[in-house]
Amino acid sequence: MQPSEVGLYVEDLTVGRQFETGSVTVGEEDIIAFAKEWDPQPYHLDSRAASESVFGGLVASGLHSLLTAFRLFNDSGLLRGTALAGLGIDSVRFLQPWRPGRALSLQIRVDAVRASSKPGRGVVTFSLKALEDGDTAILTLSLAALVARRSEAV
Amino acid sequence: MQPSEVGLYVEDLTVGRQFETGSVTVGEEDIIAFAKEWDPQPYHLDSRAASESVFGGLVASGLHSLLTAFRLFNDSGLLRGTALAGLGIDSVRFLQPWRPGRALSLQIRVDAVRASSKPGRGVVTFSLKALEDGDTAILTLSLAALVARRSEAV
Repeated sequence: MQPSEVGLYVEDLTVGRQFETGSVTVGEEDIIAFAKEWDPQPYHLDSRAASESVFGGLVASGLHSLLTAFRLFNDSGLLRGTALAGLGIDSVRFLQPWRPGRALSLQIRVDAVRASSKPGRGVVTFSLKALEDGDTAILTLSLAALVARRSEAV
Repeated sequence: MQPSEVGLYVEDLTVGRQFETGSVTVGEEDIIAFAKEWDPQPYHLDSRAASESVFGGLVASGLHSLLTAFRLFNDSGLLRGTALAGLGIDSVRFLQPWRPGRALSLQIRVDAVRASSKPGRGVVTFSLKALEDGDTAILTLSLAALVARRSEAV
């Protein structure tokens, strides 16, 4: 998508529209620092322990992949200033681990748009697919967000 | 639950078993620091902007509540050394915002247990409910994890 000062409103988010984000590459230090704070499992903390795990080597916590996906979504500017609240997340699937040195980027698709119980906003459901190095899907999820309606903007 | 050196195996996790965790209280500084790194929305970053948002005041990012729930789950020791991998997260619902000074704790219930495609492990689905100050549900979700089977443990 093109960078812009203000993101898209409900009226702009027609079902089927797709967007791509920039990417973030993760290092071993990033993986370990995140895991220490949020998900202290041996296979996220220590290369040796990780080599004996089901992953066969150090991998990022799925929560690290998940938060990076949301950060890429935010940084895309898609809903800059128009996101009112996150409502729910569904169908998070950790398909493959995110490994050190690999880049994560995001494909975003508008899946559904519906009215909110209050005027001036709508509920938009996006499907997100996180790709490693631009090809392998490592994470998919569905995100429902409360988004401002252009016609009510001040 | 009782603290223990090693967590529970698939055989221990009968459907309907319930557990409670300790709690974490969040401060304004914690909320802002998390938001700067992962979810830089005005209502998570700045009290004045937050007071004009739908929340009426500074609130933690839903991702902050979500990660804290997982951290409480980990710290409970329920699956210490027996969690092999997270598989998926479903039905994440942000029911109420988590506000500064409030304590978040977790109720955990075993919802389903099924065999894995490989021996020595099983897939366990937990429902998690995060409570603010022990009474108000602010977040619910379902978590599927790959858990070691006791009979195959070395």
